[in-house]
Amino acid sequence: MTELIGELSESDILRRILARTPEATAAVVGPGDDAAVLALRGDLVATTDTLVHGPDFRLAWSSGFDLGYKAAAVNLADIAAMGARPTALLVALAIPASLPVTMVEEMADGLAAACAQLAPGCAVVGGDLTVSATLTIAVTALGDLEGRGPVLRSGAMPGDTVAIAGAQGVATRGLSTLFRRFTDDAGVPITLDLDVLTESERREVRAQLRPEPPIALGVAAAQAGASAMMDVSDGLVLDARRMARASGVTIDINSQAFDNAAAALEGGEDHSLLATFSGPLPQGFRAIGRVLDPGAEAVTVDEARYDLPGGWDPYRDWDAQAG
Amino acid sequence: MTELIGELSESDILRRILARTPEATAAVVGPGDDAAVLALRGDLVATTDTLVHGPDFRLAWSSGFDLGYKAAAVNLADIAAMGARPTALLVALAIPASLPVTMVEEMADGLAAACAQLAPGCAVVGGDLTVSATLTIAVTALGDLEGRGPVLRSGAMPGDTVAIAGAQGVATRGLSTLFRRFTDDAGVPITLDLDVLTESERREVRAQLRPEPPIALGVAAAQAGASAMMDVSDGLVLDARRMARASGVTIDINSQAFDNAAAALEGGEDHSLLATFSGPLPQGFRAIGRVLDPGAEAVTVDEARYDLPGGWDPYRDWDAQAG
Repeated sequence: MTELIGELSESDILRRILARTPEATAAVVGPGDDAAVLALRGDLVATTDTLVHGPDFRLAWSSGFDLGYKAAAVNLADIAAMGARPTALLVALAIPASLPVTMVEEMADGLAAACAQLAPGCAVVGGDLTVSATLTIAVTALGDLEGRGPVLRSGAMPGDTVAIAGAQGVATRGLSTLFRRFTDDAGVPITLDLDVLTESERREVRAQLRPEPPIALGVAAAQAGASAMMDVSDGLVLDARRMARASGVTIDINSQAFDNAAAALEGGEDHSLLATFSGPLPQGFRAIGRVLDPGAEAVTVDEARYDLPGGWDPYRDWDAQAG
Repeated sequence: MTELIGELSESDILRRILARTPEATAAVVGPGDDAAVLALRGDLVATTDTLVHGPDFRLAWSSGFDLGYKAAAVNLADIAAMGARPTALLVALAIPASLPVTMVEEMADGLAAACAQLAPGCAVVGGDLTVSATLTIAVTALGDLEGRGPVLRSGAMPGDTVAIAGAQGVATRGLSTLFRRFTDDAGVPITLDLDVLTESERREVRAQLRPEPPIALGVAAAQAGASAMMDVSDGLVLDARRMARASGVTIDINSQAFDNAAAALEGGEDHSLLATFSGPLPQGFRAIGRVLDPGAEAVTVDEARYDLPGGWDPYRDWDAQAG
């Protein structure tokens, strides 16, 4: 018989989750007390990002492992984008009582796998569990600047090279495939079947459900003297506009830098790292444009005005149907 | 006309919230970049706790201000319980699109007020906003040990005095009043009307909806050499059992230390600080028992076995009806 969340106590479930969680390198005190304690070498970086069933994911498409992996990855990307090394995650799970316990165990495995693959040494150091009608995974990620200053959005200077690390525009194609192939006539998500997809479709869907941002390249960019950096979460042009406005410059993007420029310019959820450099690019970054003196447009593409949205507001643009 | 959450973009709402949020003393970089940056003097303490509509609060009883205040207070208490000074909060809000924007502004005011009153210098440094069918407030609190070691649950030694700071058993009486007086025949919450209550009932209901834990006394206890400390969140006997088991001792509680022993022994949600001291108690703590050599029971009351639960599992014991 399937064991359900509502049949166990909070401490039972937390015990099951923590048994699947390795220890964080920086942890002085791990889970089990009122709070975790971490020893850091430099200033602390902290961010929080939440996945909610409906707006952010559909259980018809994402496994528990996918959800844990993605919840970790999107938060690790924000730490990397400051030039910091991720050290720890805190995870607040609000879960329906009707959910199988194995689903939560898979989430724990996904969180642990994302840390191990993307940010070795980082691990879950604390958590909270509540019952909710709506499955919600709120992750806080913490990072260590290790004595460096943070790399902000506001430091791009005219003359800098604009560069990107990681996939760009792949996850957004995966999302299109999910909506096109795995919804019913009313637009409600139906169960994902990877076997009916081509190899490249499968790769794109996986990038959407389980993104693998280039976390280690955040520290590498900082060490190489990046003047500005952010992660591309909502769309390349839209996020580049935010960087350009914060820096008081214009950013020109060269569409030839991408195989599929349309997807790359509008795509966000790969959580690639967008950075600017006055000197040579560190390994893993490739040039996609340059920083210009401030002009009428915050972002131009091939030196021309770009009239599409440049990304999306996940808050506004995705409906909240179940599935 | 009432402006609803669903009518604004995420960035519009975040801008409104941040306008109501003071700057954290420790913040090097505040909200607006990929992540916040904090300068700490010692090791970092981190914890997360979530309020979910249904299991944790009812909109019939709690105002937006109450929710913000309580979400901050319960997290600050976990930081204080380690002997640390709270420095920053990160807030992940998942909110129904149908909620009035003013409700979210009131939450921001409640978060700010709790920081100002309970932990001056601490403030919200980051957040995330998502649409959800279920109103959920996930807060992560960060604290600074300022060069001290953490005060764990596991350090209580036979011979130590058991002491408490803050109200104990008041919030639980408030919750009883809410269920007794402000539910309909089917048990569904109805709108709270403070005017029909006696003065002491009002005080108890307020303690439940807007607890005021003695946050500053966490650092005071650490400085006075507390051997163990935790916040009482689920029930005095239940939480004392956790401390006794972690420390390998028996804790004896003197019921005469309380006016209303029944409520004090079972009550949790005041988030009082339970600590043990080998020397004199710091101001603000009062003796409620002593630490004994380990015996058959982890906790005794008046040196006798205590057979009630000693608290509750908020995860298991509260139903999730709307209201």
